[in-house]
Amino acid sequence: MRTAALSALLVLTVLCTLTRSSQAQSESQSAIEKVLHLQQGAWNRHDLDAFMTGYWNSPDLTFFSGGKENHGWQAAMDRYKATYTSPGHEMGKLDFSDLRIEMLGPDAAFVRGAWHLTKSDGKTPHGLFTLIFRKFPDGWKIIHDHTSSAD
Amino acid sequence: MRTAALSALLVLTVLCTLTRSSQAQSESQSAIEKVLHLQQGAWNRHDLDAFMTGYWNSPDLTFFSGGKENHGWQAAMDRYKATYTSPGHEMGKLDFSDLRIEMLGPDAAFVRGAWHLTKSDGKTPHGLFTLIFRKFPDGWKIIHDHTSSAD
Repeated sequence: MRTAALSALLVLTVLCTLTRSSQAQSESQSAIEKVLHLQQGAWNRHDLDAFMTGYWNSPDLTFFSGGKENHGWQAAMDRYKATYTSPGHEMGKLDFSDLRIEMLGPDAAFVRGAWHLTKSDGKTPHGLFTLIFRKFPDGWKIIHDHTSSAD
Repeated sequence: MRTAALSALLVLTVLCTLTRSSQAQSESQSAIEKVLHLQQGAWNRHDLDAFMTGYWNSPDLTFFSGGKENHGWQAAMDRYKATYTSPGHEMGKLDFSDLRIEMLGPDAAFVRGAWHLTKSDGKTPHGLFTLIFRKFPDGWKIIHDHTSSAD
């Protein structure tokens, strides 16, 4: 009886660890989508601190943009402040669209999507992004951001 | 005795499935690095067919470049042919550098790196890339490529 129970436990454990249920995947995708929606909302109320909570707070966070590489959460925050909140600049209205969240493991995913800014002067910079997400104890965070602007 | 053996098997199975050994990770990283080196070599002997074997041969392969999105292996091949092998164009000499291969699961990884082309007219277009790799029965393949050019 004990052997049978252990065998059952073995099978169950293997099944549980080897296969991520589609429900768990769906929950992870929803959690990641929520991070992006929170970021979009934070940006649009000009709350850069809240926007930046979507990123891994680490010197190892990487940003690729316009062929340039930048490292670290603080540098990203400083760059956003300089580019969007310094005198003569504005954050505008941000829209994410065409989000495709694909799980790459139980604790990792990548996101493809498009971004679109609407500024008060009528300009609408826009482009695409690829994000790598990892799951941390405090939630899903972007560990790498590759953003391109359309010409 | 049989119970003890099953318990040991249970522990072993859980350990094996829960933890990817650093050796397995290292093997995967080497395999991915090899794909990229093969691509670089293929490009530099102007063998576009061999270069393209690094990509997932699927309509779901995605390319982000210059804010534009393209779908599918065949479209990528056609674009490379038009951009680099049609009259008046050249493939030049390709160098990948600063490769960082990070595993995201047993069958997934992402790669950060830089690309640099040297053309016969002295021009040196260059930039950064983010690649998502997945492991298929026939090896590691790029399923998503986000490439940026430096201004």
